[in-house]
Amino acid sequence: MFDAVTLKLNADPYILSALREDITSEDVSTNAVMPSRKEGEVDLIAKQDGILCGIDIFARVFHLLDESVRVNPFFRDGDEIHNKQKIAEISGDIRVLLSGERVALNYLQRMCGIATYTREAVKLLEGTNIRLLDTRKTTPNMRIFEKYAVKTGGGTNHRYNLSDGVMLKDNHIGAAGGGKEAIAMAKAYSPFVRKIEVETEDLAMVQDALDAGADIIMLDNMDHDTMKEAIRMIDHRAEIEVSGNVTKERIPSLLDLDIDFISSGALTHSAPILDISMKHLHAV
Amino acid sequence: MFDAVTLKLNADPYILSALREDITSEDVSTNAVMPSRKEGEVDLIAKQDGILCGIDIFARVFHLLDESVRVNPFFRDGDEIHNKQKIAEISGDIRVLLSGERVALNYLQRMCGIATYTREAVKLLEGTNIRLLDTRKTTPNMRIFEKYAVKTGGGTNHRYNLSDGVMLKDNHIGAAGGGKEAIAMAKAYSPFVRKIEVETEDLAMVQDALDAGADIIMLDNMDHDTMKEAIRMIDHRAEIEVSGNVTKERIPSLLDLDIDFISSGALTHSAPILDISMKHLHAV
Amino acid sequence: MFDAVTLKLNADPYILSALREDITSEDVSTNAVMPSRKEGEVDLIAKQDGILCGIDIFARVFHLLDESVRVNPFFRDGDEIHNKQKIAEISGDIRVLLSGERVALNYLQRMCGIATYTREAVKLLEGTNIRLLDTRKTTPNMRIFEKYAVKTGGGTNHRYNLSDGVMLKDNHIGAAGGGKEAIAMAKAYSPFVRKIEVETEDLAMVQDALDAGADIIMLDNMDHDTMKEAIRMIDHRAEIEVSGNVTKERIPSLLDLDIDFISSGALTHSAPILDISMKHLHAV
Amino acid sequence: MFDAVTLKLNADPYILSALREDITSEDVSTNAVMPSRKEGEVDLIAKQDGILCGIDIFARVFHLLDESVRVNPFFRDGDEIHNKQKIAEISGDIRVLLSGERVALNYLQRMCGIATYTREAVKLLEGTNIRLLDTRKTTPNMRIFEKYAVKTGGGTNHRYNLSDGVMLKDNHIGAAGGGKEAIAMAKAYSPFVRKIEVETEDLAMVQDALDAGADIIMLDNMDHDTMKEAIRMIDHRAEIEVSGNVTKERIPSLLDLDIDFISSGALTHSAPILDISMKHLHAV
Amino acid sequence: MFDAVTLKLNADPYILSALREDITSEDVSTNAVMPSRKEGEVDLIAKQDGILCGIDIFARVFHLLDESVRVNPFFRDGDEIHNKQKIAEISGDIRVLLSGERVALNYLQRMCGIATYTREAVKLLEGTNIRLLDTRKTTPNMRIFEKYAVKTGGGTNHRYNLSDGVMLKDNHIGAAGGGKEAIAMAKAYSPFVRKIEVETEDLAMVQDALDAGADIIMLDNMDHDTMKEAIRMIDHRAEIEVSGNVTKERIPSLLDLDIDFISSGALTHSAPILDISMKHLHAV
Amino acid sequence: MFDAVTLKLNADPYILSALREDITSEDVSTNAVMPSRKEGEVDLIAKQDGILCGIDIFARVFHLLDESVRVNPFFRDGDEIHNKQKIAEISGDIRVLLSGERVALNYLQRMCGIATYTREAVKLLEGTNIRLLDTRKTTPNMRIFEKYAVKTGGGTNHRYNLSDGVMLKDNHIGAAGGGKEAIAMAKAYSPFVRKIEVETEDLAMVQDALDAGADIIMLDNMDHDTMKEAIRMIDHRAEIEVSGNVTKERIPSLLDLDIDFISSGALTHSAPILDISMKHLHAV
Repeated sequence: MFDAVTLKLNADPYILSALREDITSEDVSTNAVMPSRKEGEVDLIAKQDGILCGIDIFARVFHLLDESVRVNPFFRDGDEIHNKQKIAEISGDIRVLLSGERVALNYLQRMCGIATYTREAVKLLEGTNIRLLDTRKTTPNMRIFEKYAVKTGGGTNHRYNLSDGVMLKDNHIGAAGGGKEAIAMAKAYSPFVRKIEVETEDLAMVQDALDAGADIIMLDNMDHDTMKEAIRMIDHRAEIEVSGNVTKERIPSLLDLDIDFISSGALTHSAPILDISMKHLHAV
Repeated sequence: MFDAVTLKLNADPYILSALREDITSEDVSTNAVMPSRKEGEVDLIAKQDGILCGIDIFARVFHLLDESVRVNPFFRDGDEIHNKQKIAEISGDIRVLLSGERVALNYLQRMCGIATYTREAVKLLEGTNIRLLDTRKTTPNMRIFEKYAVKTGGGTNHRYNLSDGVMLKDNHIGAAGGGKEAIAMAKAYSPFVRKIEVETEDLAMVQDALDAGADIIMLDNMDHDTMKEAIRMIDHRAEIEVSGNVTKERIPSLLDLDIDFISSGALTHSAPILDISMKHLHAV
Repeated sequence: MFDAVTLKLNADPYILSALREDITSEDVSTNAVMPSRKEGEVDLIAKQDGILCGIDIFARVFHLLDESVRVNPFFRDGDEIHNKQKIAEISGDIRVLLSGERVALNYLQRMCGIATYTREAVKLLEGTNIRLLDTRKTTPNMRIFEKYAVKTGGGTNHRYNLSDGVMLKDNHIGAAGGGKEAIAMAKAYSPFVRKIEVETEDLAMVQDALDAGADIIMLDNMDHDTMKEAIRMIDHRAEIEVSGNVTKERIPSLLDLDIDFISSGALTHSAPILDISMKHLHAV
Repeated sequence: MFDAVTLKLNADPYILSALREDITSEDVSTNAVMPSRKEGEVDLIAKQDGILCGIDIFARVFHLLDESVRVNPFFRDGDEIHNKQKIAEISGDIRVLLSGERVALNYLQRMCGIATYTREAVKLLEGTNIRLLDTRKTTPNMRIFEKYAVKTGGGTNHRYNLSDGVMLKDNHIGAAGGGKEAIAMAKAYSPFVRKIEVETEDLAMVQDALDAGADIIMLDNMDHDTMKEAIRMIDHRAEIEVSGNVTKERIPSLLDLDIDFISSGALTHSAPILDISMKHLHAV
Repeated sequence: MFDAVTLKLNADPYILSALREDITSEDVSTNAVMPSRKEGEVDLIAKQDGILCGIDIFARVFHLLDESVRVNPFFRDGDEIHNKQKIAEISGDIRVLLSGERVALNYLQRMCGIATYTREAVKLLEGTNIRLLDTRKTTPNMRIFEKYAVKTGGGTNHRYNLSDGVMLKDNHIGAAGGGKEAIAMAKAYSPFVRKIEVETEDLAMVQDALDAGADIIMLDNMDHDTMKEAIRMIDHRAEIEVSGNVTKERIPSLLDLDIDFISSGALTHSAPILDISMKHLHAV
Repeated sequence: MFDAVTLKLNADPYILSALREDITSEDVSTNAVMPSRKEGEVDLIAKQDGILCGIDIFARVFHLLDESVRVNPFFRDGDEIHNKQKIAEISGDIRVLLSGERVALNYLQRMCGIATYTREAVKLLEGTNIRLLDTRKTTPNMRIFEKYAVKTGGGTNHRYNLSDGVMLKDNHIGAAGGGKEAIAMAKAYSPFVRKIEVETEDLAMVQDALDAGADIIMLDNMDHDTMKEAIRMIDHRAEIEVSGNVTKERIPSLLDLDIDFISSGALTHSAPILDISMKHLHAV
């Protein structure tokens, strides 16, 4: 369930902005033919199998237009939904149902798409201790929704943004004059509740990160053998994240690695939407 | 080229919001190790073949952080770019290059992805008079960028939002008491510079729309034979748009239809991103 | 009736801004003498004859300050109201009634003024097929309210803004290299649901627009004989809009023209306000 | 001259909002035919005699779209301008000149209209010590511009809003239990740098205000003889403001009164715009 | 009591901004362990003696997160509260109580701190006619709250900001060419409901301000004897404000002066917070 | 030095809001007497000894009003400044120097005050390995400035807000059903780059947190002996933070504890401002 405080405080401004993107002055078509309020009902129908995610966001779109719209869901976020199933019934002023439909579905379809893709990827990791991470490769102004969808699908969130996590890349390390220096500077500078992660591209960098006391070491775009060697070197003295063009297709090849995390940008930038539509609108 | 007025007036608020989504207080990693300004350069490199789109948005992300960053592009929006090609060189304060990288790429990769997918779809229509349309199935708060990407790829924009186009669906027609009534009401109500489009699902609705004087008739989710019959009935008395789960895969099956437009939500909701990255960051 | 979705989504930000313009920290006078809530009633009284417009906006001003204020109207937008008639009764916390009075009236008086002026102008066109159009000559940050007032008065809205209509002026045509080229470029570029209007100042421009396939031809500031000749040339192959310093006084001289539209900036930039006041405030 | 700090800090948000009202995504007409920058020049021409006001706002509209636009004015705010005179030359990207024209003129014409009307009213007061005041009957979200226009025309600003002035009406006085009590409460409550004004409708209220120590007494909608008696009673122990449906036409009948101020809502709610246009746009 | 109109119109934007400062995406700790709503109660307990101020702001923080939270106060703003007293009971969703606690207390503690300090300072003035004024030395974005706290403590507000009061300093006077000229210009320029205050640093400036007709004369940072002489010179022809590093400690030394006002920046910039906490949170 | 990206992206909205709090329409006093630009200079002078902090914020206030103002500082953030020293020279339009002075000083004085207080507290910890932490007890809408001031003074930032750190209190633990459960849930839920901190009030809670694998254990409001015992129990298996009404006065009594951190709300909620003023404004 999408937390109510976050919904109101953090999600509302994005949803209102999206509504204003779609209605800059009025819904001309609807207002032309329906000058007054008329109660109606409509069904929310899955047109593909997948994982439900974002039903509260879907409802909020309508509530921000008209508080009296009622959304009655038959599933909860994280539930499996199947093609042709009725996900929810929505009732209220037909004009509002028509005006809010597109934005509500644009959010819902995308969030379900990400949750569905994530769930499938997470299933591939069953039986291992590896957890699946998202990245900051989210759609602009969609992070709060997309990170939630990853969690709904069974994934784990990596840092939210540049302000709440420390990840040192080669340029950071170079600027600091070495891995040890960079980690020392990061520990001195950043809020002390952060772990320090170091991105490494070869074994020398792994060794350096290890010596410097990194909490987490990312093995970025390494070949399988190099990763194996890195894992051996690290020997559980830091958490290990594997990264680099990870898609569902590639995950099976990583299952033999003794690592803690796999991160995948594809979860948020390449998951196809889940097809869902509003059907059977009728007056009541 | 993304129009400079639109960039400043309409795109900036979205870009700033996206930057604040990624930097809520500061880039902790960068600030920890680089306390002062340091000039550097970095290359923007294609990692797949595709169509460039959004280079001005990419540049704007950095300029909103620091006006002195210089982006020197070697291609223009709409150009084909190939794997491993250098798209642009970016120079400026290394700290800014690091802080803006992710947001800039998140916009660029998505816009290139849509332009690339659209170009491929448009190519399938070569030799016909059919034009490819987008829909309102865009990512929330991304419409201005995604509609532009469709145009860059060679597509044509359908209405921008609910306020600037009239499309009458069955519920509108039912509320008005018939197609003729609905179109008359729409013409009386809406700004007179709009064409009136009617969405039809069967031949009776087509006939009704035709009799009522629709400017554009959408054939929504009809089978091939029904579409053929509808086209024959309309006989060029209205423009014709074909719609309903149109993907690149399905376009070839539509080429024998004498229609004006095909619309495809997939252009904006299912185009995969184009992989692009910033590489070789170094001090100068 | 002002549409509830537009009211909440699009009008509220303007109304809140207007309220904050009038109350930057508090209503000092009221707070000084009325430290606590006190129920009261007040009448909204017409002080001139005219057309009511904006009663929902009037009410919204108070509701944005205090949801418990009740506005009970005796007329609806579009109704004729007469001097000394009671338009509505408002009840609620007297402090709120005093604090919101000025902003509520500033909206209402101006909207009624425009609706009244428009109604008078529209009456002059009775018996013809000519429709009266507004323009973009609206007061900054008042368009949504002023365009609605024109419709309430019986007028028709021209395009809402630069983004939702295409109007080609001589500079556009010159830049394109001719009317034909300009229209072709506009049809290729703009969302296909737009009609293309061309502004003409002489018969050569009319002929050019006609040849180029303009949907609408505006005759701008032409003398009567030239307009007659233009209308003969166009011969119903395009819709015709007459424009240029049109006021109520000038409309009668245009009645013999076989045209579709007359547009008038005066509707929104020169309509005097309708005098309305809140009277008889008393505790209950 | 419009103060530069106010322009940037307080006026910019309104101007940007007005621009976004007119350009929700792009200027379609201009972008369709002019894909790239093209330098041009245009003249700002008076089409009526009047007082110039708002030339800095006019310029700012263009600068907010493109900082490189140059506005070269031949007159300053407060100057008389005459029909057909060139007020200014504007040069820059023709696309920007076209896109910003309407909003720039909408501000300028309205501000000039108010300054012109005010100047005419102020002239009627020449030879007296009476000063002309505006009111809070301004157009929503235009107060900062309209109050400035009144000053430019030679008028004086009354309080800006409910937060920065104290005006006690009959309801305030009733709530406080009498004029004396109300003024005492206002002095105790409000920032001490405010004068206290009391609105009176008959001689008893004047006497009460006087006894209570009002700094300013407003004679609201009184007949001439009553005003004369009130002035005699007040005998310079408070400043006197005459109010109530004051237009240019009514001012001459007030000239024999020994008063300090006349306030007129008509200055801002009924001044017709001054006709001004941009002409002779050409490439350079 | 904090006025409800001001709360909604003017305070809400600051409070929402403060909440978003503390919750950029979600309350991670709470959401991790409490996935669903759970009713609870908590006490608001004073941990020092002082004056209550801001209980409506405290409540509003929670209401902006969740309208169903109930705050039941046992005291009103301005009341004395004592160490260990229960100020209020708060009940609602425990998750909301945890998420809003810090921001609510940050406002309340600071406002109580200022009211407490002000009350103590005001008590020192008992038996005199001197009133205690605040200044513009408030914490950025806290003025509306801090000025209210001063009033709650028994102080009087000086001007709210640069727009609603006139205070002429030496640089203003120098620019105008003398005190008389400066006051004349201020009276001609500024809304006529303002009093004109002049800041003076020596007796010559006092004489100048007096001759020029200042309404209020500020004696800034003068020694005691100079102030005495200034007071003698002014002889009740203007109100007198004494200013300059006034703290509670220094007030007793000013009691023998025949002045109207003492202003103290310390009220808002140096008052320590009042310690208050939320205790005994438990499910119900 | 305040990071330039954070300044523009994150600090500007707060600074603009603070400026608009102080100038709702214009600086009346200044505009009344100085109708046109006039170059001048002014000195920024310390009136107490302390630590400089916020000079870039101070400068930014002026730059947001007028980009041509020049601030030439003689010290950098973190430097000691002494009474009567000239900290900087500011030159530009005198009107802007007057209009921006108060807001600029309100930020600077507060930030210097916090840095100064923090530096003094940090000095007390010299010779130990204990680091001084701030808290979330910051002034609303000032966190970004106050947390920076703590760092400038030599302190370390605790978590920035509720979204970027995990701290489990007794209510969280109770809701989860025990410390072990709470930590497990927090690790599963929260972004994996966060450390988990547990707040404890007695030895049982310490033991529980330890068993559950807390990264950091906070000893909250414990007496000295209990803390000693807790430290012994923890035995370096978790980082230790001591908290609870820590002021400069109390720090010496904590120096014998073998702990990692002491956190103090007083740093931000009780540090007195540092007195600084702008002096010697003169035309040039």
